[in-house]
Amino acid sequence: MRIIGIDPGIAIVGVGIIEYTNNKFKVIDYFAITTTPKNTMPERLEIIYNRLDEILRLYNPDAVAFEELFFNMNAKTALTVGQARGACVLCAQKRKLNIFEYTPLQVKQAVVGYGRADKKQMQQMVKVLLNLNEIPKPDDVADALGIAICHAHSSNFKDMFRIK
Amino acid sequence: MRIIGIDPGIAIVGVGIIEYTNNKFKVIDYFAITTTPKNTMPERLEIIYNRLDEILRLYNPDAVAFEELFFNMNAKTALTVGQARGACVLCAQKRKLNIFEYTPLQVKQAVVGYGRADKKQMQQMVKVLLNLNEIPKPDDVADALGIAICHAHSSNFKDMFRIK
Repeated sequence: MRIIGIDPGIAIVGVGIIEYTNNKFKVIDYFAITTTPKNTMPERLEIIYNRLDEILRLYNPDAVAFEELFFNMNAKTALTVGQARGACVLCAQKRKLNIFEYTPLQVKQAVVGYGRADKKQMQQMVKVLLNLNEIPKPDDVADALGIAICHAHSSNFKDMFRIK
Repeated sequence: MRIIGIDPGIAIVGVGIIEYTNNKFKVIDYFAITTTPKNTMPERLEIIYNRLDEILRLYNPDAVAFEELFFNMNAKTALTVGQARGACVLCAQKRKLNIFEYTPLQVKQAVVGYGRADKKQMQQMVKVLLNLNEIPKPDDVADALGIAICHAHSSNFKDMFRIK
């Protein structure tokens, strides 16, 4: 089963692509889609959409997984992240892919084994589980791979996690 | 000059289309694009995108105007509105339209004449300025028409208001 995890933001969208077969993980690839304030917000959304669309077309995953957005961010950040997320979710939906989402707690539990794990522990476990030589950079990419791992671990009862 | 004002939300997107020629307004049409929680969030974003795309194609405006998002909403609302807004902005951008945004203060000043106008006064002035028999419903549509009027009034110095 091929899974793409996505961690959206307006400056960086982390994208991690894994294959999960017989309880084994294999990394296929990972990307950071980046945009800069040199472009307008509409242009940045279009850059994100077009690059993600190309990745989804190329890797044609069985599932796309997002992290449920944090509600403890401030409203201004939330509005900006929300716009980037909207572009990413729309992109997966237009490709008629299966879309899932997980809370940060679920991702930590699936990757590290307990929900209070910190960022460093998460990244270390992503590296170990995926048999990588180093922690993928930037953080958004490691997070995206973590989300993909979480979906793999949850895939026996995955209908619970379809985005409502 | 044909202007489309857009007031995005996940349940209702208000869309107002006006023509502004020789300092005169004419309403071309207005719509509320609606979605319900019966659909998933990805489906709702797709419905919004597809309907707006059809409207933009049909009415081919010279400018598309949004209200700058309120930063005094809570983060959960901001994330949801942000996703809907992202889909709408992306849609206008993909059609290579000129996109502008105005603060609520600018919209009120342009429509009513002063920035502390309340919702009722705004709606009343939208009705008067556009020579309508009644206030357009729902509120989101009246707001979208107000945003379009604001752009018309600002169009002599419109480059100031391109979305950054």
